[in-house]
Amino acid sequence: MKFMHILVTNDDGVTAPGLAALAEAMRGLGRVTVLAPDRNWSASGHVKTLHKPLRVKPARTSDGAEALACDGAPSDCVALAFLGVVEEKIDLVVSGINPHPNLSHDVTYSGTVTAAMEAAIGHVPGIAVSMDTNDDTDYGPAARAAARMANEVIARGLPPYTVLNVNIPGLPESEIKGVRITRQGLRVYRDELVTRLDPRGHPYYWIGGEAPAGIRDEGTDIAALAEGYISVTPLQLDLTAYGMIETLRQWKL
Amino acid sequence: MKFMHILVTNDDGVTAPGLAALAEAMRGLGRVTVLAPDRNWSASGHVKTLHKPLRVKPARTSDGAEALACDGAPSDCVALAFLGVVEEKIDLVVSGINPHPNLSHDVTYSGTVTAAMEAAIGHVPGIAVSMDTNDDTDYGPAARAAARMANEVIARGLPPYTVLNVNIPGLPESEIKGVRITRQGLRVYRDELVTRLDPRGHPYYWIGGEAPAGIRDEGTDIAALAEGYISVTPLQLDLTAYGMIETLRQWKL
Repeated sequence: MKFMHILVTNDDGVTAPGLAALAEAMRGLGRVTVLAPDRNWSASGHVKTLHKPLRVKPARTSDGAEALACDGAPSDCVALAFLGVVEEKIDLVVSGINPHPNLSHDVTYSGTVTAAMEAAIGHVPGIAVSMDTNDDTDYGPAARAAARMANEVIARGLPPYTVLNVNIPGLPESEIKGVRITRQGLRVYRDELVTRLDPRGHPYYWIGGEAPAGIRDEGTDIAALAEGYISVTPLQLDLTAYGMIETLRQWKL
Repeated sequence: MKFMHILVTNDDGVTAPGLAALAEAMRGLGRVTVLAPDRNWSASGHVKTLHKPLRVKPARTSDGAEALACDGAPSDCVALAFLGVVEEKIDLVVSGINPHPNLSHDVTYSGTVTAAMEAAIGHVPGIAVSMDTNDDTDYGPAARAAARMANEVIARGLPPYTVLNVNIPGLPESEIKGVRITRQGLRVYRDELVTRLDPRGHPYYWIGGEAPAGIRDEGTDIAALAEGYISVTPLQLDLTAYGMIETLRQWKL
């Protein structure tokens, strides 16, 4: 177990405290390489940077540990590591700890989750770890949960093209009620258009509004987190809506 | 039918000829608004731009038709349109015509497909249209196929949180064998690391290598396209790996 090589990345950038906490937790399971974006890539989606070259430079995490910083997206970090920027073979990719939950339809937007997807596409198990944090966040509960998840993934593996999406409630550890295996719930995005005028009178637009809410259906990631449980959702990269195939065969296409 | 309002976007930018061809085809079905990125966003993933404001400006498609150009991602174009930058309610979003196929695991990277996903998240049917083009591309076959798909979607609707991912072979229309309803196949990415040194001797990295290949399993998008059929894959935004939920409940998490 001690010879596992774990790549740790995130979408908030190499100096984010959640990354340092996650890397430190992974050091209990194996050798850790941190390769993370040099800036925040939240809601950046699943990126493969093909139109420009990427740089990788030595950096430090917020607790002073050695790391590598890249000017690409989280998924670029994983791709570059697999392609040889990190020389030693990688056995597991863990992404996070994101300081906001990644639930429901967040998963395709999320740099945290798409980094784990990039791992799965590269035939390496991937885990995305997010926390429903508040201002004075202690990443300890999330880091320890991530270590337990990673330990099980190392021992048992994941099916091909599958990742674990882990969300931890923003509660003191003693108040976390346990772990629930969940399905993806339904988000209620509350984005609003904020229109402003620049000093020359031309409009520009912010996507504003409140943080997304969600429908607390039994069995979903949203409900588990809201009820104080750690949510673990297995996600697959096969998005085929199999239930619709027969229907479509009746259409006049 | 003539009162449908169709939003047309793409990930190659407002001046791409595939966009003009798609918009023109949609004009046979209803009123069309074109709102597309002002530059190429290929392999940009599912983006929600929250960290900076976005601009929307009048533009023209390559055939001179009126359009709007935005400095955000394809999914931002859809989000802004829904949030009110486009005043009239949108009934259908069609994205493309991408001059390369979007198959298999391309779908989470693809700006073309994630624009359609953004539509589905906004409770509007979305269709992504891509073509396996060559240098002297005639978008006519793809545009006519897109019109047939859109016509059926308008007539029948799509289930919630579902999009159609349409890929058209790069063949003369007479050689296209028909339409197959498919599942997502398996991509074989052939990315390679290309390391170069800048004039100051510092390395930088290109994600290079050949275009992705794919496994031609029967029933997949990859096989259909390779065999000369139009591939229509229904995709869902629920990525839950349901088959793994019971297994995970046995884990020590």
